Amino acid sequence: MTVLRSYVGGRWTAPDDGQPVHDAVTGQEVVRVSSEGVDMRAALEYARATGGPGLRALTFHERAALAKAVGLMLREHREELYALSARTGATLGDSRFDIDGGIGVLLSYASKAKRELPNDRFYVEGAVEQLGRGGQFVAQHVLTPRLGVAVQINAFNFPVWGPLEKFAPALIGGVPSLIKPASQTSYLTARVVELIVESGLLPDGVLQLVCGSAGDLLDHLGEQDLLSFTGSAATAQRLRSHPSVVARSVRFNAEADSLNCSILGPDAEPGTAEFDLYVKQLVTEMTVKAGQKCTAIRRAFVPRERVDAVVAAVSARLAKIVVGNPADESVRMGALASLEQREEVRRSLKALREAGRLAFGDPEHVDVVGADAERGAFISPLLLVCEDTRRAEPHEVEAFGPVSTIMGYTDTADVIDLAARGLGSLAGSIVTADADFARDVVLGVAPWHGRLLVLDSEAAPESTGHGSPLPMLVHGGPGRAGGGEELGGMRGVLHHMQRTAVQGSPRMLSAVTGRWVRGAARTEGEHPFRKSLAELRIGDTVVGGPRAVSLEDIEHFAEFTGDTFYAHMDEEAAAANPFFDGRVAHGYLIVSLAAGLFVQPDPGPVLANYGIDNLRFLTPVYPGDELTVTLTCKQISPREGEYGEVRWDAELTKQDGSVAAQYDVLTMVAKRWPA
Amino acid sequence: MTVLRSYVGGRWTAPDDGQPVHDAVTGQEVVRVSSEGVDMRAALEYARATGGPGLRALTFHERAALAKAVGLMLREHREELYALSARTGATLGDSRFDIDGGIGVLLSYASKAKRELPNDRFYVEGAVEQLGRGGQFVAQHVLTPRLGVAVQINAFNFPVWGPLEKFAPALIGGVPSLIKPASQTSYLTARVVELIVESGLLPDGVLQLVCGSAGDLLDHLGEQDLLSFTGSAATAQRLRSHPSVVARSVRFNAEADSLNCSILGPDAEPGTAEFDLYVKQLVTEMTVKAGQKCTAIRRAFVPRERVDAVVAAVSARLAKIVVGNPADESVRMGALASLEQREEVRRSLKALREAGRLAFGDPEHVDVVGADAERGAFISPLLLVCEDTRRAEPHEVEAFGPVSTIMGYTDTADVIDLAARGLGSLAGSIVTADADFARDVVLGVAPWHGRLLVLDSEAAPESTGHGSPLPMLVHGGPGRAGGGEELGGMRGVLHHMQRTAVQGSPRMLSAVTGRWVRGAARTEGEHPFRKSLAELRIGDTVVGGPRAVSLEDIEHFAEFTGDTFYAHMDEEAAAANPFFDGRVAHGYLIVSLAAGLFVQPDPGPVLANYGIDNLRFLTPVYPGDELTVTLTCKQISPREGEYGEVRWDAELTKQDGSVAAQYDVLTMVAKRWPA
Repeated sequence: MTVLRSYVGGRWTAPDDGQPVHDAVTGQEVVRVSSEGVDMRAALEYARATGGPGLRALTFHERAALAKAVGLMLREHREELYALSARTGATLGDSRFDIDGGIGVLLSYASKAKRELPNDRFYVEGAVEQLGRGGQFVAQHVLTPRLGVAVQINAFNFPVWGPLEKFAPALIGGVPSLIKPASQTSYLTARVVELIVESGLLPDGVLQLVCGSAGDLLDHLGEQDLLSFTGSAATAQRLRSHPSVVARSVRFNAEADSLNCSILGPDAEPGTAEFDLYVKQLVTEMTVKAGQKCTAIRRAFVPRERVDAVVAAVSARLAKIVVGNPADESVRMGALASLEQREEVRRSLKALREAGRLAFGDPEHVDVVGADAERGAFISPLLLVCEDTRRAEPHEVEAFGPVSTIMGYTDTADVIDLAARGLGSLAGSIVTADADFARDVVLGVAPWHGRLLVLDSEAAPESTGHGSPLPMLVHGGPGRAGGGEELGGMRGVLHHMQRTAVQGSPRMLSAVTGRWVRGAARTEGEHPFRKSLAELRIGDTVVGGPRAVSLEDIEHFAEFTGDTFYAHMDEEAAAANPFFDGRVAHGYLIVSLAAGLFVQPDPGPVLANYGIDNLRFLTPVYPGDELTVTLTCKQISPREGEYGEVRWDAELTKQDGSVAAQYDVLTMVAKRWPA
Repeated sequence: MTVLRSYVGGRWTAPDDGQPVHDAVTGQEVVRVSSEGVDMRAALEYARATGGPGLRALTFHERAALAKAVGLMLREHREELYALSARTGATLGDSRFDIDGGIGVLLSYASKAKRELPNDRFYVEGAVEQLGRGGQFVAQHVLTPRLGVAVQINAFNFPVWGPLEKFAPALIGGVPSLIKPASQTSYLTARVVELIVESGLLPDGVLQLVCGSAGDLLDHLGEQDLLSFTGSAATAQRLRSHPSVVARSVRFNAEADSLNCSILGPDAEPGTAEFDLYVKQLVTEMTVKAGQKCTAIRRAFVPRERVDAVVAAVSARLAKIVVGNPADESVRMGALASLEQREEVRRSLKALREAGRLAFGDPEHVDVVGADAERGAFISPLLLVCEDTRRAEPHEVEAFGPVSTIMGYTDTADVIDLAARGLGSLAGSIVTADADFARDVVLGVAPWHGRLLVLDSEAAPESTGHGSPLPMLVHGGPGRAGGGEELGGMRGVLHHMQRTAVQGSPRMLSAVTGRWVRGAARTEGEHPFRKSLAELRIGDTVVGGPRAVSLEDIEHFAEFTGDTFYAHMDEEAAAANPFFDGRVAHGYLIVSLAAGLFVQPDPGPVLANYGIDNLRFLTPVYPGDELTVTLTCKQISPREGEYGEVRWDAELTKQDGSVAAQYDVLTMVAKRWPA
């Protein structure tokens, strides 16, 4: 019998024996799992000593390229992974959700990191804060990668997506990962790790795998490590209060199952597109992964008078769901992950039936295609109806299978109150075409949710559905959902880094962040537009002007552009305006003149102005005022290829020194010139 | 004897008796403290049922106005608070640090919230994320106030700043506070709360106070509550692992004492400004609040060859520090908070002396002015020197008093390693004029720090110093420092709110966020520049154009503005540029023409264009291209007074539908018109 290997310290272990794991469909043994012989402390040390330094030597963009390469490589092995996934009870659709979903997270993080993070090793966050009146004491926040390991303890239900959605942001953030999959489906996770290791794409120590028990792993966590967990609330509590986690302030994140709700709007009567969307989505959420999703809909809230109609429509659809061996093409719902899971679901169902009645399905019997209903962990979809919506059970008891409870609500306040009784959810959905209802419910239940989907017929064709966490959106929720937050685009990356406020003189802050900070020295000399990216330095400056602005200029510009706004043209109306003493120059005119003052006309390394950021007009410019512009190289961001981005600080002052306008000019500059 | 009262459920309690608290200077009893009879569960419920809804009915700006009013009111009572503060052992300087500092946090949050938050009840964070190719499924993150209570357990050393720095962001975030001060100095916190309650400025239930033991307070914490703590690592661990906190995912933040370091740069030899700054700062940090600051410098790292010079210079300054009764004007350092604290310091010192020698001071004796050295909790400043810098004690043992240890380092890598041995600090400082050294050390030790100060002679005149947390900068640190983060400007406000990803059609997302989202309907009709703030609606749109751009326009604009950049003027050079096929229109020209196409010239409610955000030039505009602009009202932000801000989405397209430029136009618009 195969025994799963762990990958630690750059080597695969070879355990002799372990706990058996069974095929969810046939009940046959798939593999044995054991972490015996894994030196947990050494594994963590290896990541800290080898994986971390290796990753931190790369820039965000270089790490993004690794994420992309791993994602593309795994995509080539999808068929093999689907086959393995079927043994966990997953249909092909379920497998795609898990496997393609996980690869999608890697690719999404790769492209988003390239767009949203600098090509640098640390991240500068937020504005420069002026701390003293004279401007010689300033601060800014910097995030650097934590020096530890991201220990990731995953749930059985998404053996590919689960590890990859934790690994991707850790990788981009510069922190090595140690993956501990749930034993039940660990053979699929292990194969993914094997493929990554065999590909040789990642630096040593960046990815390790411990199959089987976590042993004394947590005892060795340190102050720079992170621990993230997906799974049951009980385990989350045990990890959160582990002595090492508590004593060393290990950064902890939990994502626990929750009793997510879906709300049908009062407008969505039978026959409307939204009614159908609601019913269809509920059935999908009940049956995808046989309902073994921590985001699945457990509580279906519908207007009280619609309960019967919804029950009928959902039941009719559920009746068409073919349960059985995922290998059979007609099958729409596979098995639970194990016979133990089925027992667990049956136990939970008993508690739920204390508070409501079963409207569809029999927990003890299901017709199965292509498999043995008892050897495989099959169960029927089960729909309950609860009349007494203030009973605790439907808001508290989670049957982690194809099980939902329908409850009627009276009005908006009532459904907000019902939603809150879940005490914290990962996801909720509101199916309605009524924008006012949507707004009131979203803002009413938002404090209890990590993600809310408003589904209507406009969104439906592109909607990814209630149950799908997306890499650019936060995944997590308060209270019962674990109180954590994963993904969320670059938020998930920054979670792996330490935020530090850095204070000092503008000169020192510039030196630390690599961005010129107002107040630091400006270097005048050769025109900076004559310098290639290789020659340009932050602080390089050109001063242009003065140039007088006449009334004729204003009138001419108005005529030429058609911008005859009264503040430029009508002395009396302009003076009546609270901001002006009389006719003023167009903002567009003064920035156009500024460009005329700072550009250098000859062909050179500056290729294009691709934008302007944070332009603010601070003092009006009147006829007779004289403008001077100071343009200073603020940030240089080389990109792959022949050029890079240069951000310039532009300050436009009047003859009295007052600032007429401030903004950032964005240009593309060639790396070498002549090219 | 006075017994301190608690303020819960809108009433002051009247306990019969309690534990005595003694004057730090005279040893006399000041007050007795007891929370007996306080119904903790009822206090929390009162905050949730009354304080929360009252606060959430206000906008960020309205809450900011409350913070400002409370701050200004307290400022009027400073003298009374200083007098009370002296009984805690504080000098007038110490009291200002605590009291003026706390008031400063309130005022800073008030003004920053008005600038950086919308005048709204929730916060929209980050960009709209397009989730489908067709643009009909989008998402954005929204933060809403948590529905619970911010329970704030404070340390004895800053009885005013401590509570106020937690209260200010909670207030702005819309979450009521329950303050639990440390008993030793709770009479000062209680007086501050009394003043606030008497002022009647705050809605009911927004601020409660529990003096004495926390009793069963934590047992009643729920999923929407927050718990923040400042104090010892041991207590932080107890709170973090409290069953309610763990089981209900209570949002927890700890800020614990840490062994902060200050690093003298190799350039800063005796005689330099930076050498003097280092010595002076070290003495200040040792003696302010008699060293009872969680940010104080415990570890002073200096180049190995400078140890003797630094010890001599620091000792010379320490010798001039007059210790004694803060009432005496010559006194520079007051008493520790209590005799128990002094015993604690003496115990810690014993451990530190295992690893080093005492270079200044005698823990058992100090000359005291105006007080009895034994009845008052006086102690001498104590400077140690540790030769064996790899000993554990100086990096682990914190003597919470006027105690620091000087250690020599060999090079940059060595000092980075030494700093890390503190296993997590709130603050660190690097005193140097060498920008390269500063950068290397800052980036090297940042993962271990919440805040780093680079001090040089340029920053010094305005520097607030190593030990001063500032409201706009994060305060907290990894590992030993508690792993938390407070303040940080609006970050501290958002900490009190729940982040929720909202998905849906552009129409639904617009309805929820109150901001027009691209893809939602545009309403054409009366020109939106004719509408006052009261009449304008998001989605109101004007389309202008088309206008052809000719080569003459480009040449004319170049001549008029002086912007003769080659890409506009030189066909061959422009075509050689990787971005262009030939001469292109100036970006400034096309946005100027766009303004000419969308403005309405008559005097009206639109008062001024005050800026432009996120302008990106996406497709080049060539001679002969025709431009059409679509301007859509995106966001309406009423301000106090007669006008408000309106943000417009501007999209400039060419005849083939390609987008030439996209940007936000920012205008001021009158609330009523005619005014």
